[in-house]
Amino acid sequence: MSSSTGTLFRVSTFGESHCKAVGAIVDGCPSQIALCEKDIQVQLDRRRPGQSDLATPRQELDSVAIMSGVENGKTLGTPICLMVMNKDQRPGDYSEMIEIPRPSHADFTYMAKYGIKASSGGGRSSARETIGRVAAGAIAEKFLKETCGVEIVAFVSSVGGINASGVDYHTVNRKVVDETIIRCPDSAVASKMIDLVREVRDDQDSVGGIVTCVIRGVPAGWGEPVFDKMEARLAQAMLSLPATKGFEIGSGFAGTALRGSQHNDPFTWDNGQLRTLSNNSGGVQGGITNGETIAFRIAFKPPATIGKSQKTVDFNGKQTVLEAKGRHDPCVVPRAVPIVESMAALVLADCALIQKAYQQ
Amino acid sequence: MSSSTGTLFRVSTFGESHCKAVGAIVDGCPSQIALCEKDIQVQLDRRRPGQSDLATPRQELDSVAIMSGVENGKTLGTPICLMVMNKDQRPGDYSEMIEIPRPSHADFTYMAKYGIKASSGGGRSSARETIGRVAAGAIAEKFLKETCGVEIVAFVSSVGGINASGVDYHTVNRKVVDETIIRCPDSAVASKMIDLVREVRDDQDSVGGIVTCVIRGVPAGWGEPVFDKMEARLAQAMLSLPATKGFEIGSGFAGTALRGSQHNDPFTWDNGQLRTLSNNSGGVQGGITNGETIAFRIAFKPPATIGKSQKTVDFNGKQTVLEAKGRHDPCVVPRAVPIVESMAALVLADCALIQKAYQQ
Amino acid sequence: MSSSTGTLFRVSTFGESHCKAVGAIVDGCPSQIALCEKDIQVQLDRRRPGQSDLATPRQELDSVAIMSGVENGKTLGTPICLMVMNKDQRPGDYSEMIEIPRPSHADFTYMAKYGIKASSGGGRSSARETIGRVAAGAIAEKFLKETCGVEIVAFVSSVGGINASGVDYHTVNRKVVDETIIRCPDSAVASKMIDLVREVRDDQDSVGGIVTCVIRGVPAGWGEPVFDKMEARLAQAMLSLPATKGFEIGSGFAGTALRGSQHNDPFTWDNGQLRTLSNNSGGVQGGITNGETIAFRIAFKPPATIGKSQKTVDFNGKQTVLEAKGRHDPCVVPRAVPIVESMAALVLADCALIQKAYQQ
Amino acid sequence: MSSSTGTLFRVSTFGESHCKAVGAIVDGCPSQIALCEKDIQVQLDRRRPGQSDLATPRQELDSVAIMSGVENGKTLGTPICLMVMNKDQRPGDYSEMIEIPRPSHADFTYMAKYGIKASSGGGRSSARETIGRVAAGAIAEKFLKETCGVEIVAFVSSVGGINASGVDYHTVNRKVVDETIIRCPDSAVASKMIDLVREVRDDQDSVGGIVTCVIRGVPAGWGEPVFDKMEARLAQAMLSLPATKGFEIGSGFAGTALRGSQHNDPFTWDNGQLRTLSNNSGGVQGGITNGETIAFRIAFKPPATIGKSQKTVDFNGKQTVLEAKGRHDPCVVPRAVPIVESMAALVLADCALIQKAYQQ
Repeated sequence: MSSSTGTLFRVSTFGESHCKAVGAIVDGCPSQIALCEKDIQVQLDRRRPGQSDLATPRQELDSVAIMSGVENGKTLGTPICLMVMNKDQRPGDYSEMIEIPRPSHADFTYMAKYGIKASSGGGRSSARETIGRVAAGAIAEKFLKETCGVEIVAFVSSVGGINASGVDYHTVNRKVVDETIIRCPDSAVASKMIDLVREVRDDQDSVGGIVTCVIRGVPAGWGEPVFDKMEARLAQAMLSLPATKGFEIGSGFAGTALRGSQHNDPFTWDNGQLRTLSNNSGGVQGGITNGETIAFRIAFKPPATIGKSQKTVDFNGKQTVLEAKGRHDPCVVPRAVPIVESMAALVLADCALIQKAYQQ
Repeated sequence: MSSSTGTLFRVSTFGESHCKAVGAIVDGCPSQIALCEKDIQVQLDRRRPGQSDLATPRQELDSVAIMSGVENGKTLGTPICLMVMNKDQRPGDYSEMIEIPRPSHADFTYMAKYGIKASSGGGRSSARETIGRVAAGAIAEKFLKETCGVEIVAFVSSVGGINASGVDYHTVNRKVVDETIIRCPDSAVASKMIDLVREVRDDQDSVGGIVTCVIRGVPAGWGEPVFDKMEARLAQAMLSLPATKGFEIGSGFAGTALRGSQHNDPFTWDNGQLRTLSNNSGGVQGGITNGETIAFRIAFKPPATIGKSQKTVDFNGKQTVLEAKGRHDPCVVPRAVPIVESMAALVLADCALIQKAYQQ
Repeated sequence: MSSSTGTLFRVSTFGESHCKAVGAIVDGCPSQIALCEKDIQVQLDRRRPGQSDLATPRQELDSVAIMSGVENGKTLGTPICLMVMNKDQRPGDYSEMIEIPRPSHADFTYMAKYGIKASSGGGRSSARETIGRVAAGAIAEKFLKETCGVEIVAFVSSVGGINASGVDYHTVNRKVVDETIIRCPDSAVASKMIDLVREVRDDQDSVGGIVTCVIRGVPAGWGEPVFDKMEARLAQAMLSLPATKGFEIGSGFAGTALRGSQHNDPFTWDNGQLRTLSNNSGGVQGGITNGETIAFRIAFKPPATIGKSQKTVDFNGKQTVLEAKGRHDPCVVPRAVPIVESMAALVLADCALIQKAYQQ
Repeated sequence: MSSSTGTLFRVSTFGESHCKAVGAIVDGCPSQIALCEKDIQVQLDRRRPGQSDLATPRQELDSVAIMSGVENGKTLGTPICLMVMNKDQRPGDYSEMIEIPRPSHADFTYMAKYGIKASSGGGRSSARETIGRVAAGAIAEKFLKETCGVEIVAFVSSVGGINASGVDYHTVNRKVVDETIIRCPDSAVASKMIDLVREVRDDQDSVGGIVTCVIRGVPAGWGEPVFDKMEARLAQAMLSLPATKGFEIGSGFAGTALRGSQHNDPFTWDNGQLRTLSNNSGGVQGGITNGETIAFRIAFKPPATIGKSQKTVDFNGKQTVLEAKGRHDPCVVPRAVPIVESMAALVLADCALIQKAYQQ
């Protein structure tokens, strides 16, 4: 259960690594939105492995097909089924792990929950599960861009403790982000991050990082108090991604050290509307957008699958040493960038429709 | 919309500061659970203002009444309506603010969303909204304790940058937490926190902080991949609370600086079951509990309402200076402790029921 | 679970006969709708017992209080809690039944499901449960009337096999319906129905009937294929009412005997829009309203509680004879009229908001 | 929106006549259920056109593929994607209709709702939409049979006013139902029904009918008061099917003519449990199953698409005559039999899981 999300812009995903296909149904995309497979493929291409030497060398082309809901380049208002066939399966790579639950992976918890082992071990905890999200998110983004002018840009802001700085939230865009293979728009820092990831990779290890996401052009009024506050929904969306351990919006954890007089965002009047002079709120107040740039950060742990040998026990409790074979990402954050954008788009598209329903 | 949460253990809250009552309906609490008003009142008493000089001196007794769903001290399996009458209303205190949206409060965004001003300004963004959550959460907690032995303990781990240390997640309990008025079990640090809050209060200012929550006794298998992963639901629950800006579980943001070989939690065999030697995962792997202690942290910003004068503009854009009158909390985290516990209980009770439905 | 219904206009009801109160929360009513308790009371008064000698002589005044969500006569967009205190409780009347499950009542099934006996026997199967629905429905109706001009009229079209005829769906209104105590606008037939109900009542028996509901002014386009087709949602709403056994829309069961050439509703052009010449569709085609009058019928069985003695067995299987004491309705359909209208309003308000979200 | 249904056993369908594929995702099927494509194909074969001369001669093989969620013949507990490619597309057959909305079809209402014309006219109102339901329903049925022993049998009980009689609800089974091409187990009446359908077909017309569904082996306690009462959910499920106009359970509309003393089902004691001597309740009391056979009937109108010429107007209001070309079903009820069974299975599987979650 719970491979669905959203109230009016509703997405259901399916598929694990070794089945025939992965994908999603988007139910509730308004009709008459221009849509073709290229609109979706561009984000899938940014997500796929094998883009650089920082990622797993697995070549997954991940070509999407629109199976329903679109005719003559326009959405019909009916469910849009998106499908990507699974091609590059190598179950053998995982054979050893089947008997040894990989530390900090989901092999054990899936077994505890479902009482059955998928051949890949962790079932839907595989990164391939995010393909359906990205495909669906691309549609949400198209809808948001065409109807509201919303722009979503995510980028890598930290890798292994190396932090980017000086990124301008008002101007950063995907072109700039994609200029480095680590997807960090602070090019000086990007080089250091890349060096670190290569070092870690050569050491058969992995490293964590942080993705920052900024969203521009959202009008004041989106988000549904109290349980579906904008930040609450974004937090759920982001923490539902594999390998995430934290979410913060606006001032986040650092803001807890401040006084109210420092932290409050004073109002000002700009072009006939209320704006704020600072943005510690991160674009939301009381769970509702205030028209400023939404900005949040997501913590990704180091990938659990590493080549380095690990002392652990097998499913029967026998001491053993695990050395993962196969092809792994030493650092997931560059590929996480389009995934974060997609999840943000899904939340926003849903909030946009709900607010449209209620407002006068 | 969206004052409801949960799939099987479902809660709907209602009420704002100046209406007749606040409360909640709990729909889906199993039948035959022993329940009386005292079970609920104890947490409401920990939440209410006026408990110490660190909180607003407002005296809200917040007596709960069970209006339905319980007979002869047992739940009937039908909706349980919980109600707390609003008594200590002083709308006058807020009169000035009506024309001046309070910086970093929800006055402006509620107006932008709903096009109407509640007399208290921010409508459901009031802290009183959490009364319904706490009352409902107390029922969830009773259910969890009786049927599964789950134990939930939250405490203040940071105030204004002063951090607690040495709290043992395996033994910390509510009695220890409540020994200091700041609700920090590290008593040496607690004194410093209390001093800071008094200083900030006397300065007509406010300060932020962090609440840590630990949950013991949850079996492996709870949480629903992919969108309702345990950490995703906890993140939504916590970010739906007023004044929250961040959530992290297990290693959180700090874990992003680590290598996989440092971060992974190796398995061990203990009393016939798989356990982990470390707990960077925070009790969840792949969105499913692994039987270890669940541990997460929530960032609370400094309260937006301060007595200190603030330069801002009114709803018409006219420059003005705001000095909030009335009674405010200089720091919300001590009172947030039972609220965090309640939201955790709501998420867990729902996950417990769902897992019971699916497991064989 | 499942005392909630609706997606955007969401209602949660609570309460059984012998608890402190019954009521509902309406979550998702748009802001700025004029609303006061009188708007709601009028339908509660049409629902309450004791209106005529055809109904139970119990006097339940059922005064509603708005506990939240409304200020200065306008909705705030936040949850509206509606409450009616339980006053006229006579648990003693039901004491015998506790040991003897009433035939065709819910005493047995509630016990089978929940494993606990509410003092009234059937818990939420009591007719008092509909108070929350009627109160919530009155708000939905206000919203529909003010924003879309929708008009909902239900009436009794059959009692014990005596059928009304000649009711004009285009003009029938509540004033005409309320002119007879049986609420049948065919006054000649109404007298016969009334005579029958009195005869049945004096015989300590009960009798069934049919309520017809017509809805005028709904534009084309409401209803959500495929699972939330307008007729599907209306059917669920109506079959969720106590004592209902059937639902039909448009030509209904009688239409199954016709040929397509007889049954199809040909299109015509009227005032610049497509209309149909006949209305066997009952105002919906493919689950979506077509702009014609929506018309459906609901079958109500004879009330299960009768004074006449019944041979049955008690919970332990012992043969016994049951003679219900207390005060019962010999026929529920007159009081069901406002309940049916309320449920229709809840469905329509939700569909209206959803369609507003999607349409361009 | 709303191509999803169910709370724990959740189904999302997709696809229209002229897109690449139709199908469904089943999310929430418990793990470790034996499942293969044959289990599903058997019901799709009973649904497909071209089975006899009573149905459209279109040959749609409708081979199902399981795309995810099953490995080594067992469900994984993850979403099961089911897909049937669309092969026999003949858009040309519908070309004329595009400009002329077919009377009593959904061409007009889909245009009114979505503002765009799918090439087949009525989009998801096509009978092909039910393929996803039948495929998903076959899985629900497998789950119900294996875990609870539930048996679902639907059959044709009326065609064009010709009614079956003497069908024993305790013994009727699919083998007997399939012995006649009209799927009526009363063989004498079946012949008359077949003659009528052939006559109607040769006359380029269509005719309606009624499907009865009986469900045996459901224990007492399923169904969720108040809005998700068993009969309410069955009613929604059935009225969400194309061409349905009515639903009745147990005594249904006929029961409205009875007295309570006639209609009530007295209890008796049988093998240590409470049973009822009659079954006017149709297996449900107060929305909860009572352990007796569930029995309900669904009214299907005559198919709207007929070859006979019809006077109508086009989308611009111009008078015209429509003579549908292409291949149509003169009577849908034989093919509706497995569809009704599938929808019943989806409702029951969901109710079974929910009750498992709550019961002690």
